[in-house]
Amino acid sequence: MKPLTVLKIGGKLVESESELNEVLQQFSKINHTKILVHGGGKMATEICERLGIPPKMVNGRRITDEKTLKVVTMVYAGWTNKLIVSQLQKIKTQAMGFSGADGNMILAKKRSVKEIDYGFAGDIQKVNVEGLNKWLLDGITPVFCAITHDGNGQLLNTNADTIATSLASALSSKYHVRLNFCFEKEGVLANTADDTSVFRMIQYDNFSKLQKQGIIKGGMIPKMENAFQALVAGVNEVKICGILGINSDKGTHFYL
Amino acid sequence: MKPLTVLKIGGKLVESESELNEVLQQFSKINHTKILVHGGGKMATEICERLGIPPKMVNGRRITDEKTLKVVTMVYAGWTNKLIVSQLQKIKTQAMGFSGADGNMILAKKRSVKEIDYGFAGDIQKVNVEGLNKWLLDGITPVFCAITHDGNGQLLNTNADTIATSLASALSSKYHVRLNFCFEKEGVLANTADDTSVFRMIQYDNFSKLQKQGIIKGGMIPKMENAFQALVAGVNEVKICGILGINSDKGTHFYL
Repeated sequence: MKPLTVLKIGGKLVESESELNEVLQQFSKINHTKILVHGGGKMATEICERLGIPPKMVNGRRITDEKTLKVVTMVYAGWTNKLIVSQLQKIKTQAMGFSGADGNMILAKKRSVKEIDYGFAGDIQKVNVEGLNKWLLDGITPVFCAITHDGNGQLLNTNADTIATSLASALSSKYHVRLNFCFEKEGVLANTADDTSVFRMIQYDNFSKLQKQGIIKGGMIPKMENAFQALVAGVNEVKICGILGINSDKGTHFYL
Repeated sequence: MKPLTVLKIGGKLVESESELNEVLQQFSKINHTKILVHGGGKMATEICERLGIPPKMVNGRRITDEKTLKVVTMVYAGWTNKLIVSQLQKIKTQAMGFSGADGNMILAKKRSVKEIDYGFAGDIQKVNVEGLNKWLLDGITPVFCAITHDGNGQLLNTNADTIATSLASALSSKYHVRLNFCFEKEGVLANTADDTSVFRMIQYDNFSKLQKQGIIKGGMIPKMENAFQALVAGVNEVKICGILGINSDKGTHFYL
């Protein structure tokens, strides 16, 4: 099968223009079919604050009320997405921006209210694989922001790691898929105070052990859950890495 | 040749959700190839104000400084574009949002500084006709916002009427093109105080006469210049109309 790379970028990498440029340079050098998925960084939070919309977070996840949905759609699908697309066009990558609503690419469902009401948060139901593959075969490099829709006119805020996982999983029937979660560190660290303490690999067996030992915690847990989910769904290679890992073997590799 | 409708919507039609819904319902009923182009309404101005960015206007045109560019990109390409795409998906129109940067669809050039420095305002240089036509043939309904790029990483703010004119003109070699500028009135009014005083048709010969008489003024002049430009460029039918004119003969028709 032909190779496909799904690169998710987030955190500080989308907040600083110089880091973003470096990421996009590396991304453009991937000389096979590729998809970029980006988070929004802290710009949405800053704009919410400046507009007087108080941030609501529970367990590190944003609660998306109606006003917040407007802001995240503006920032993710508007500014960040178009900035990335225009920068990729500059370096001759035929990029095209997508939310899940565009071409009905990612259908999601508003998260049902149990203990917590996450507001307009979307859980992915279906990727339009055939539609997406048409663009890929045509030489388009899709750039996805973290906004989806429910098919009934409602936009939804969806975690960018989950979007990358869903796209990679859905395309694993057609491609040999490499999924890279790229952020400001060079991989999963054994010691968060030591940037060189990167795990070379993590097997599923060790995942719960590392959590119990308190070595893996916070936002890294859902990220790694996505990594293992992708492998279960048939994605061929999954790693968490930094910019240096985009075109090298560097980073933390995951295995079932 | 196969028919194609380019519908531009602006002003109050994109500001009120109920009017927007009515427009999109009418748009979805056009049962041949179609493109929607939308302005941003006053939301960008409101958000600029709330963020403390003072609006700068000269001759009814916005001066786009760096901060304003961020806001218009957020509002036009982010919120308004994705709202429209998700609403069209709801009524089973396979819509897809575009800025000029996406797929390099509209290349523009930063307006050169003569008497007035318009800032990051873009004058259109080239429409990617072949790329765009591929999506049209594939059943996609493109939804364009009023943001373009210069191919060198710079996003630019571009008048939505001009975008509609450029798209319609570029596609007139492949389709029988109908270009409709749709706004809150039912057409060009002979008397702005009387909504029923709609011109049935205006010929180019009468255009300068109507200006001299002060009957056509303000923002209507560049809109009508676009209308005649489109006819010169080969667009087959051009009119300015209201919602009722989208699927009827109503509105002001233009002829050379």
